[in-house]
Amino acid sequence: MKIRVSIIGASGYTGVELIRLLLKHPKVQISYFISKSNDGNEIAKIFPHLTQIINNKFEDVDLEIIAENSDIVFLALPHGNSIEVIPKLLEKHCRVIDLSADMRIKNVDTYKKWYQADYVNEELLCDAVYGLPEIYPYEVINSASVIANPGCYPTATILALAPLIKHNLINISHQPLIIDAKSGISGAGKTLNQNNHFCEAINNFSAYQIGGIHRHIPEIEQELSKLAMQTVQIQFTPHLIPTPRGMLVTIYCSLNSDIHLNKIKELYYEYYVNKPFIRIMPTTDRASIKSVIGSNFCDIYLYHDLRTNYLTIISCIDNLIKGAAGQAIQNMNILSGLNETTGLQNIPTYI
Amino acid sequence: MKIRVSIIGASGYTGVELIRLLLKHPKVQISYFISKSNDGNEIAKIFPHLTQIINNKFEDVDLEIIAENSDIVFLALPHGNSIEVIPKLLEKHCRVIDLSADMRIKNVDTYKKWYQADYVNEELLCDAVYGLPEIYPYEVINSASVIANPGCYPTATILALAPLIKHNLINISHQPLIIDAKSGISGAGKTLNQNNHFCEAINNFSAYQIGGIHRHIPEIEQELSKLAMQTVQIQFTPHLIPTPRGMLVTIYCSLNSDIHLNKIKELYYEYYVNKPFIRIMPTTDRASIKSVIGSNFCDIYLYHDLRTNYLTIISCIDNLIKGAAGQAIQNMNILSGLNETTGLQNIPTYI
Amino acid sequence: MKIRVSIIGASGYTGVELIRLLLKHPKVQISYFISKSNDGNEIAKIFPHLTQIINNKFEDVDLEIIAENSDIVFLALPHGNSIEVIPKLLEKHCRVIDLSADMRIKNVDTYKKWYQADYVNEELLCDAVYGLPEIYPYEVINSASVIANPGCYPTATILALAPLIKHNLINISHQPLIIDAKSGISGAGKTLNQNNHFCEAINNFSAYQIGGIHRHIPEIEQELSKLAMQTVQIQFTPHLIPTPRGMLVTIYCSLNSDIHLNKIKELYYEYYVNKPFIRIMPTTDRASIKSVIGSNFCDIYLYHDLRTNYLTIISCIDNLIKGAAGQAIQNMNILSGLNETTGLQNIPTYI
Amino acid sequence: MKIRVSIIGASGYTGVELIRLLLKHPKVQISYFISKSNDGNEIAKIFPHLTQIINNKFEDVDLEIIAENSDIVFLALPHGNSIEVIPKLLEKHCRVIDLSADMRIKNVDTYKKWYQADYVNEELLCDAVYGLPEIYPYEVINSASVIANPGCYPTATILALAPLIKHNLINISHQPLIIDAKSGISGAGKTLNQNNHFCEAINNFSAYQIGGIHRHIPEIEQELSKLAMQTVQIQFTPHLIPTPRGMLVTIYCSLNSDIHLNKIKELYYEYYVNKPFIRIMPTTDRASIKSVIGSNFCDIYLYHDLRTNYLTIISCIDNLIKGAAGQAIQNMNILSGLNETTGLQNIPTYI
Repeated sequence: MKIRVSIIGASGYTGVELIRLLLKHPKVQISYFISKSNDGNEIAKIFPHLTQIINNKFEDVDLEIIAENSDIVFLALPHGNSIEVIPKLLEKHCRVIDLSADMRIKNVDTYKKWYQADYVNEELLCDAVYGLPEIYPYEVINSASVIANPGCYPTATILALAPLIKHNLINISHQPLIIDAKSGISGAGKTLNQNNHFCEAINNFSAYQIGGIHRHIPEIEQELSKLAMQTVQIQFTPHLIPTPRGMLVTIYCSLNSDIHLNKIKELYYEYYVNKPFIRIMPTTDRASIKSVIGSNFCDIYLYHDLRTNYLTIISCIDNLIKGAAGQAIQNMNILSGLNETTGLQNIPTYI
Repeated sequence: MKIRVSIIGASGYTGVELIRLLLKHPKVQISYFISKSNDGNEIAKIFPHLTQIINNKFEDVDLEIIAENSDIVFLALPHGNSIEVIPKLLEKHCRVIDLSADMRIKNVDTYKKWYQADYVNEELLCDAVYGLPEIYPYEVINSASVIANPGCYPTATILALAPLIKHNLINISHQPLIIDAKSGISGAGKTLNQNNHFCEAINNFSAYQIGGIHRHIPEIEQELSKLAMQTVQIQFTPHLIPTPRGMLVTIYCSLNSDIHLNKIKELYYEYYVNKPFIRIMPTTDRASIKSVIGSNFCDIYLYHDLRTNYLTIISCIDNLIKGAAGQAIQNMNILSGLNETTGLQNIPTYI
Repeated sequence: MKIRVSIIGASGYTGVELIRLLLKHPKVQISYFISKSNDGNEIAKIFPHLTQIINNKFEDVDLEIIAENSDIVFLALPHGNSIEVIPKLLEKHCRVIDLSADMRIKNVDTYKKWYQADYVNEELLCDAVYGLPEIYPYEVINSASVIANPGCYPTATILALAPLIKHNLINISHQPLIIDAKSGISGAGKTLNQNNHFCEAINNFSAYQIGGIHRHIPEIEQELSKLAMQTVQIQFTPHLIPTPRGMLVTIYCSLNSDIHLNKIKELYYEYYVNKPFIRIMPTTDRASIKSVIGSNFCDIYLYHDLRTNYLTIISCIDNLIKGAAGQAIQNMNILSGLNETTGLQNIPTYI
Repeated sequence: MKIRVSIIGASGYTGVELIRLLLKHPKVQISYFISKSNDGNEIAKIFPHLTQIINNKFEDVDLEIIAENSDIVFLALPHGNSIEVIPKLLEKHCRVIDLSADMRIKNVDTYKKWYQADYVNEELLCDAVYGLPEIYPYEVINSASVIANPGCYPTATILALAPLIKHNLINISHQPLIIDAKSGISGAGKTLNQNNHFCEAINNFSAYQIGGIHRHIPEIEQELSKLAMQTVQIQFTPHLIPTPRGMLVTIYCSLNSDIHLNKIKELYYEYYVNKPFIRIMPTTDRASIKSVIGSNFCDIYLYHDLRTNYLTIISCIDNLIKGAAGQAIQNMNILSGLNETTGLQNIPTYI
């Protein structure tokens, strides 16, 4: 029997990527494509690439009805909306994968401050499992009712750093970790603004929310601190690449001792054993987003500068897949007791 | 009377940008367009955009003849060629602006190591002035015979850091400065290789020469150390943006004390007073290469993170102009006693 | 004494291109930068690339005041607005260059039908001179009060066909001329819509307003019919190139007789003698927009297929310059008795 | 039991797309990845995106051995190589899908003239079936030994025109059909040349091989003439879009009578009934390559201009899939008695 899923917020970029991946998933059937703004419109009219593939309409349906006809619901709504939606779905024994940031930050004060939120549902926050399956055990995710699907920058960053922090190999005490992140423009969503106008974005490259103000900072710090069992601070700058998809994060770490790069790589292999979406890449002279685009992979490259004893780590993901829709489906697979790779074995597109 | 100039290596991207800018320069006439590989070809045949603008041919002419008919020669050759060319030009009282790296590194051992060079002309190296006119006084450049035109990454980086280092505001003693640099693809030149194939470069973003091995590192360290009057180390990673032009460098500095951002900005204004190509930009939520493309500007943005007491600096240039041909012409202006902005007041293109 | 000009609609893409070009024009000073939507904002705040270049604000000023302080006013407003603005400016002896389509169509019924217009000012329409300076004599433009600045597609198309039609070389009687046009995305302006979202426009190429419904059709037919002294019909399809600027038009003509290509080229040279912005290009194996971008050139390429006796013509312009702002300034030069190339001799950017 | 296939020329763009699609094909196993130039190299070293997906090496193996271990061989070699390779494969009862042009042109003189070929294997040419499965019956392809896999431009063009020509609806007697074609840059392959350099191709749009000289012309004319049972001539201009993939062809036809667009569409639906990769699209105001990229679809849009009684047809394919590797696999499916859609049901990527 197939898993019945619904997508709330199905007409945004994350939504439409969920549709693309779920339609090819062998164990899934989609019950509802929920989009308030496109209610009643044929999906193939809004997205002509789906002509002859899908005959459904976008709908706006009561949460109760959605819950009755869904085992799992994907929430791809703007931040701040999940708090009202999730309890209604849980009541009807529906499980939820929330792609917004609403369930990610466990410290209420931190959440309120970074997200300018007045009200928080602490119980819900507490129950939600941070759905990074390479870090959290299968069983923990499998038994959750609510998954807080990680942000794109946090996914690429945490996966790049976890083994180092777990083994206490880098200096995190006296200085922030420097994280210089670059994302394709789809990360900013389908909503129109001047920065996303083709003529402004092409031939351009920008840093934004500079100086430690991006909302993914507390999320990254929370997870790294948990792994380190001490407070970790980061200095994080996001940038926009004139490309639709992809994310490359460059991380600079001061090594605590004179460990050889090969030994570090071994620890990474060990840490990520049986994690099919992690690729510890050879130390070649180039690390590119092209190698992951179209796939659920996270590619990690490690470089050791003997002059400075710094480690430079490059981490690459497809922001719409491992950074959003793909990871959500990976979580869905685990929730459903499936192999985590089911329906996610697309080969990177390359050209 | 006009300044007679020649361009050796006129058919590469830097060469053709020199042509474009020099043809509009009110005080210049071009004597020779030297290109061995295109010797005898009409320039407008190789570069159809110059049809009806220029009737000359690319030539391969004896250095003696070039020198006799030129006051200043621009060398836009691959690294390693200048050492033989420059002395012959100097002999004939011609002055030289060398756009290659050959004259930039003053320490012979450093040069030999980073550039795999066997032989070095120490006297020449010693005479060559590092042509960064916002750092070196007009008189010093004006009286030089040989200008080592700075690299693109060094230009953006040194201009971003000079005031901080001069005023001893940042920690450079116990950790390398983290410099995360992103460049448009023209920086790699016109030579074909798989990474520059359109289908590989579009929709891509790469880090390359990762882990402290890029040749601009010793150049940056040399100039920063000179400003600091102590050894400065950097951790530098270059990246390629899928865009033809532009460069954005993100720099992370640990502040030594509790100085206010406005005070820092004041020191920048002061340091760069009467430097028409430096723009200390307002601390807005976005810093973009688009604002400088087509111009000789270097835009500097400063952000202070009070949580970490780190300063994040963004520095933007057009790699082909302020990072190469424009700066070379700025140096030519100074060599010739002209206002440094002559012929360089193009407004950024924006769209 | 400088020509005093104002720009109404200064914050759109055409407006900001007018600003860029006019700021470098040796005979112009700009009185007002009019933008209702940005009234009161510093120009450099909206367009950071103009920082340190321009200290003015966008304003919303009475037409009377504008007219008093301007010799010539550029109207870069959406279609349908000029009809009210122009008479008030003319009253104050100000001359007008209208970049909208409002003054281009001379036949009232045609205009009403294609532009869904209720009301037309016939007298004004009749007075307005179609400002295509390679077709209309200097004296005619010079003595006009109102210039209807041609559309981008019409500019590239009419210039490509005029000599052929003038010499009656092609079949225009029994079949429409096939005109397949491709434009950069800036042609659609700065207004946000889903098709201009970076993620939709990149990696894409679209035909739009297919089947003979684009509003530039009656404009092209009007001017070609005038040249032919008989009715000319066209079959016109516009397309969008994923590039900010540039336009390439491919035109297919059935030749009336067995004329040699060289003879045709001669007629083009003759027709466009002393027209500095027209380049009749060599018949090479490639015709590219890159050769004109950044300049006011119109490049024309001619190819004769002996198998079919068809002529294929390629015409390239920069849609923001020769297709809009540059041509407007060319018209301003002529209105002011200047050489038409003044301030318009930018060399194509190439990279 | 799986179909054993080999790819000769596996390291070009078509080859690597074949690899990507065949690795996911449920009924295929790949015996050899043949690449002379990369013989002995690990595939994942040349194509890092295949890391952890494929452990094989590129090899250069005797044709005999390939044939023994393959049921079907894909030839993705440059034009002119198949003539020697195919007979050796056929000898060993291996069937061949040739992605080059070598087997497409049935008229020997035409082939020799357009391909500058001295020698032709007429028997082989005669046996080879033109593998356009929407035009040629399943049984014809199924029983072939050699498939001439159609060119990309011919695929998009012939599919767009077949129903019209079959029903004799358009004028093909007195004028050539005008076909204005635009292709993504991967069509030119992986080989480096100046036109494919990122800095030359981005921000550019070019026409090439203008005036009726592109080698796909005789291929298109051959197939259209066969359908028309009379000689059809075309006037064809190819263009390059600054995008890696995708192809859009705009075709202009003079209708023979006053037929209504809906009637024409009905004939298309009928002609392409049970052809799952053809989508007759609604007559919306936009036709885009984005809707097919990543899929094996051919989207056809029809527009009727009542003013001129011309039909404008837009046909879109992904040049690497329906225009090359996908169509080859569609042919492989038919050769093997499978459903033609097996392994080819990828949904267009959209973003």
